[in-house]
Amino acid sequence: MQQVLEAAKPDDWRTLAPENTLYLELPRGRVVIELATAFAPLHADNIRTLVREKYFDGLAILRVQDNFVTQWGDPAGSDEHAARPLGKAKRTLAAEFTRPLKGLPFTRLADGDVFAPEVGFSGGFPAARDPKSGQAWLAHCYGMVGAGRDNDAESGNGAELYVVIGHAPRQLDRNIATVGRVVKGMELLSSLPRGSGPLGFYEDPGQRLPILSMRVAADVPVAERSALELLRTDTATFQALIESRRNRRDDWYHVPAGSIDLCSVPLPARET
Amino acid sequence: MQQVLEAAKPDDWRTLAPENTLYLELPRGRVVIELATAFAPLHADNIRTLVREKYFDGLAILRVQDNFVTQWGDPAGSDEHAARPLGKAKRTLAAEFTRPLKGLPFTRLADGDVFAPEVGFSGGFPAARDPKSGQAWLAHCYGMVGAGRDNDAESGNGAELYVVIGHAPRQLDRNIATVGRVVKGMELLSSLPRGSGPLGFYEDPGQRLPILSMRVAADVPVAERSALELLRTDTATFQALIESRRNRRDDWYHVPAGSIDLCSVPLPARET
Repeated sequence: MQQVLEAAKPDDWRTLAPENTLYLELPRGRVVIELATAFAPLHADNIRTLVREKYFDGLAILRVQDNFVTQWGDPAGSDEHAARPLGKAKRTLAAEFTRPLKGLPFTRLADGDVFAPEVGFSGGFPAARDPKSGQAWLAHCYGMVGAGRDNDAESGNGAELYVVIGHAPRQLDRNIATVGRVVKGMELLSSLPRGSGPLGFYEDPGQRLPILSMRVAADVPVAERSALELLRTDTATFQALIESRRNRRDDWYHVPAGSIDLCSVPLPARET
Repeated sequence: MQQVLEAAKPDDWRTLAPENTLYLELPRGRVVIELATAFAPLHADNIRTLVREKYFDGLAILRVQDNFVTQWGDPAGSDEHAARPLGKAKRTLAAEFTRPLKGLPFTRLADGDVFAPEVGFSGGFPAARDPKSGQAWLAHCYGMVGAGRDNDAESGNGAELYVVIGHAPRQLDRNIATVGRVVKGMELLSSLPRGSGPLGFYEDPGQRLPILSMRVAADVPVAERSALELLRTDTATFQALIESRRNRRDDWYHVPAGSIDLCSVPLPARET
């Protein structure tokens, strides 16, 4: 993989759009999230609104369920009297669990998938699609970020966010709005103590990790932004990277796998 | 899933054989590992020998690579003069990466797999097999434990162990001896700070987490053993559990996945 990345051309890399990039600032450092505006534009808008109202500042990480998700939001979110006001953000949003596949760039992975007719990558995100239904959706791979909701499909609003910290829970696909991906700082969310309550919620409020702030990168002075580039997923270099991981040729591997699953394909980022 | 487990009969559960059960004692608690003696009998024997020599006591967790593995062993293991002696344990072992599928119980998963012709469960472990080659092997799902090795296939001996803490790295299948599975205490290994060195090794020895001791359950007084039962994987109850996860029927899910991948199938344990 290192050889493939070293041979990459400058055009194989893309920068993050500051308006679609979020910084989740935790006591131990910054988590960088890229919003998937092609899949969940209404959620992305609402999350930007919440972030710009400083809604998340001082809230907390509430839940860490082993091999599943880390979740953050308002500890009092379920109490309508105590909950932090959403301000100008919407209380409910259209579901955005899937979208029409028409018009969506898609680099198909040849290796197949247990969950969807076709899987691949769209704009840097792992995704799936179904030519029969004409729909496409994001896949719940490690590091993907979603918007928590109640039982009603339209009850999510982006005020409660989670990130996948274990084996891909693909059963969530098409059931929830997946809004982006952590492109840097995953270890700050994956290495937290697991919660001992039901679903991994922290039972003792003192265990919750405070959120210092959440910001849209566009609102942060340029000098304080994370200078990141991501490998484009619509390039020959990315195809070469997939092949290098499908059949590893180094001295350690004796039997190349010959195939790869969607969520095992790395989506490289580099500092510039 | 809860309903399926509540309807389970006593015979649907099995106890762990004390001779095939290891306790990895860490400052924050006990990790329970079941050895996969049907797949890696030589490694299981060698690990038992090492454990009974108290080889692991006072060694440390050396490596935590995000979305990959946590690894423990001798910090001086690569220095033949400083390394802790292996005593009566063997320095090298036959590879045990695969074994003949003949004679092996196998509960096949109907949903297919990206990596192997057939996948399923054998004696409580996630496994794969290939009727053409006549071979079977364990699958690198979350919580599976393997024996580190150098480039030579027969260079492993069980003195360096790792556990999968992220999305299943199935490319390791058939490339390394998979020796067991963590059946309790995974969160003690998955929530550790990630190492900042290459491959997630801790750069500062002070970051290493000490191993208090490692024991074979058979050597521990009965009153101090972990009383655990595991759901058998060759039962109608287990099939019902797979179906309950393949097509979730609760109020939250709007679109049942209709399928499940090998490493998403839960392998329930309960305290007795």
